[in-house]
Amino acid sequence: MTQTPAANNGLLNRRWFLKAGAVAAGAAVLTPAMADGPWMTYPGQSPGPYGAPSRFAALKREQITLNPLGPGDGASCSPLQSLNGIITPNSLHFERHHSGIPDIDPEHHRLTVFGQVKNPLVFSYESLLRYPQQTKTWFLECSGNSFRNTFDEAPDLTAGEVSGLFSCAEWTGVPLHYLLDEVGAHKTASWVIAEGADASGNNRSIPMSIAQHAIIALFQNGEPIRPSQGFPMRLFVPGCEGNISIKWLRSLKLSPTPAQTREETSKYTDLLADGTAQQFSLKMEVKSVITSPSGKMQLPAKGIYPITGLAWSGQAPISSVHVSADGGKSWAAAELQTEPSPFAPVRFRIPWQWHGQPAVLQSRATDAAGNIQPTRAVALRKQSPLVIYHYNGIQSWQVDASGKVRNALI
Amino acid sequence: MTQTPAANNGLLNRRWFLKAGAVAAGAAVLTPAMADGPWMTYPGQSPGPYGAPSRFAALKREQITLNPLGPGDGASCSPLQSLNGIITPNSLHFERHHSGIPDIDPEHHRLTVFGQVKNPLVFSYESLLRYPQQTKTWFLECSGNSFRNTFDEAPDLTAGEVSGLFSCAEWTGVPLHYLLDEVGAHKTASWVIAEGADASGNNRSIPMSIAQHAIIALFQNGEPIRPSQGFPMRLFVPGCEGNISIKWLRSLKLSPTPAQTREETSKYTDLLADGTAQQFSLKMEVKSVITSPSGKMQLPAKGIYPITGLAWSGQAPISSVHVSADGGKSWAAAELQTEPSPFAPVRFRIPWQWHGQPAVLQSRATDAAGNIQPTRAVALRKQSPLVIYHYNGIQSWQVDASGKVRNALI
Repeated sequence: MTQTPAANNGLLNRRWFLKAGAVAAGAAVLTPAMADGPWMTYPGQSPGPYGAPSRFAALKREQITLNPLGPGDGASCSPLQSLNGIITPNSLHFERHHSGIPDIDPEHHRLTVFGQVKNPLVFSYESLLRYPQQTKTWFLECSGNSFRNTFDEAPDLTAGEVSGLFSCAEWTGVPLHYLLDEVGAHKTASWVIAEGADASGNNRSIPMSIAQHAIIALFQNGEPIRPSQGFPMRLFVPGCEGNISIKWLRSLKLSPTPAQTREETSKYTDLLADGTAQQFSLKMEVKSVITSPSGKMQLPAKGIYPITGLAWSGQAPISSVHVSADGGKSWAAAELQTEPSPFAPVRFRIPWQWHGQPAVLQSRATDAAGNIQPTRAVALRKQSPLVIYHYNGIQSWQVDASGKVRNALI
Repeated sequence: MTQTPAANNGLLNRRWFLKAGAVAAGAAVLTPAMADGPWMTYPGQSPGPYGAPSRFAALKREQITLNPLGPGDGASCSPLQSLNGIITPNSLHFERHHSGIPDIDPEHHRLTVFGQVKNPLVFSYESLLRYPQQTKTWFLECSGNSFRNTFDEAPDLTAGEVSGLFSCAEWTGVPLHYLLDEVGAHKTASWVIAEGADASGNNRSIPMSIAQHAIIALFQNGEPIRPSQGFPMRLFVPGCEGNISIKWLRSLKLSPTPAQTREETSKYTDLLADGTAQQFSLKMEVKSVITSPSGKMQLPAKGIYPITGLAWSGQAPISSVHVSADGGKSWAAAELQTEPSPFAPVRFRIPWQWHGQPAVLQSRATDAAGNIQPTRAVALRKQSPLVIYHYNGIQSWQVDASGKVRNALI
C-alpha cells in the first residue's frame, strides 16, 4: 500500500485513511469469541426525566479567575480537546461574567427599547415569545480568547484552556430589526446601547449597521437559554466579540453617539503599537485551532492520527483550512467536515502519520473575504505588547519524540 | 392597518407580525422608569465547571412505562412544546430502552465486524476515534411515536407526550462504509445484523443498501454520546425507525439474509389490513406536529399568536408545510425557519389571529419526493387497527372558546 504525502512530516492524502485505517489504528484482530461485558448480565437504569453524561466521559469547563476583587467575575472555557462536530452542548458552553450570574424570574424581567425612537416600548418575556423567531448556528468568542498565548512564555495548556473562550450553538430568537421597526427608530439613531440586568449593569454601544443583524436570543440548542448565557434573554450579535452580546438584556437605548461605557473605554479596546487605543473593533478575526492532537495529550505509539480542529471568522464564511506538521514550512489542505456558513465554525481534519520524530502541528484558516490567519509574530506586531484582545495568531502544538504534545509559541 | 388573511379562521400573511406585533403581543407601554430587578443589587454566581438550566425553565421528559414486566424497559419523551429551533439538548433527547441503560466502560467495550467478510476485525473505542468522522444534523424517531393517537379516544396530552419520541441532534461518527471496506464485505452480504451490549442484546437486521449510509456515532451535539444514547458507540441509520440505530453497538454481522430477530418479528412489524405483516418498513414517513399552541396550553387572551412546529421525513428533505386553523378546510403555507436538508427536521411558523372562537389547528408536511402527510383517517386505513408503528396522521389541536388547547382525533 502506498502512502500519499500531502505535505511534509507525515501529512497524508485523505484517501489513505480509508485503506489503512485498521492497521493505523491497531484495530485488526482475527475474530475472537465475543465476550459479554458485565453490563450485559443485568438490566440497566430505566429512562429518566433528565439525562446525564457517562461517568467515563464526564467533561468539565476550566474556570479562570480574572479579577479576584470582583465577586462573580471570571470565565470558564469549553473543553475543545474533547469535543467533535461544531455544536457545544449547553452545559459546556464558555462563560464570561463581570458580576456573576443573576437568578432572574422571567415574569419580572422587562426589556425597554427607548431613546431616539417614536414609540418607546417595553417587552415582557412572554410577549417576545410571540414574535417571529430566527434560528441560526453561530459561534461566540470572547475578545480575550487565547490571551494566555500572547505572553512571552508558553503555558502548558489544553486546547480548551488556550482557546476555549469559544463555543457554538443553535441560537433562536427575535430579529432585533422587528423591534426597531416597531419603536420607529429615528434616522439619527446610529448606535444601540445595550444594558444587562446583572449586578454590573454590563453595557456596550453597538453601531446600528451591526445591530441590524442581531437577535434577542431566547433559545440555545433548542431549550430556553441558560442563566449563564443570559436567561431569560440575551442580545446575540453574530461574528462579533462576545461581550457586546449583552446577557440578561434589560434595555436598548437608541442614540446618535456611543455611550463610552466602562467596557468600551477602560476595557475591550485595542492598544495599538503607537500608543493610541482603537475602540469598537467588534468583528472577530479569522482563526483556527487544532483540537486533537493538542496540549497535554500523549500519543500512545507511532501510527496514523487524525488531526482535527475548528476554524471560524466573524468576517466571512471559512473557505479553507491548511495544516502543517513541520511548523509552517509545508502545508496541506484539510478536509472540511461541516459545511461553511456565515458566523458558523467549521470542523476540519486531515490524516497524519507520526513517525516518532518531533513535529510542530499548526492550522491556518482562510475566509471567503480573503482574510488569512496570521502567524503569531504578525498577529502580535499589529498591536501593543500589552494587548490581549482579538489575538488570532496561528496555534502551534509541539510533539516531542516521546509523543507528548505541548503548547508552543512559535 | 390592514390584516392580510392567508387562510380562514385567522391565519395571517407573515408580514402582519412585523407591523402589528407589539399590539398583538400587548407589549406597548410608554417608557416607564426602568426598575432594577432585585438580582441587580448583589453579585450572582461565579462561572462553574458545568452549567444547568434556570430553575424558572427546568424542562423534563415525560416517562412512559411500556412493559412493566421488563426491568429497564420504557421510554421518555422530549418536551417538544417547550423547545424552539431544531436541535434537542442532549439531556432532553428521547429515550427508548428494552432492558435499561448499561453503564459501559469504554476501555472494555469492543465492536466486532464479522460474518461474510474477508478479514473480520475488532475495534476499540480509541481506535474508532482515530477514523475520519462525519458530522450531520439528523432527527431520530421511534417507530412507535404518536402511538397514543392511534387509539379511539383522544388522550389529553402535550405535544411532547403525543409525539416526543422524536428528537434531533448533531451526530458525529465514523461512516460505516469505511469499516465495511476494511473487513472486505462479500458481495453476497446483503444484510448487516447489528447487536447492542445491553442486557437485552437488542439486535436488528438492516439491508446493506440502507446500512451504507449509517455511521458509528461517537459524539452527539459535540460531546461523547450519552449512556442513554448508546455510549460509547451507537449505530445511527438516518431517516429510519430509531430501533435499528442499535445503541451500545457490539457487533455487526454481515449476512446474505436477515436474522429474523425478536424485534423484527414479534415487534416492529406492520400488521396490514389483510392480516399479513410487513417487515423492514424502516424509513420514517413524512410528518409534522404543531408544538405551539398545543395540548394543555391556555391562550391567555384574543390576539396574534405564532403557530410553530416541526416537520420531517425519512424519505426526502421537507419541501413545504401548510397550516390550517379550521380543521383542514383551508390551508396556508408556513414559513420555514430553518433550511431543509436530508434527514433534518425543519422548524416552521405562521402568525395566527385568535378571535376567541373555537378553532382546530393542523399542520401538513410535504417532502421533496412528493410525499404528503395524510389525514388521520387515511393514515389509519393503511394498516390493521392494531398497528401502532409508523403512524404519521395529521395532528389536530382543538382550541375552545376559553382558549384551552386539547389533543383531538379528527
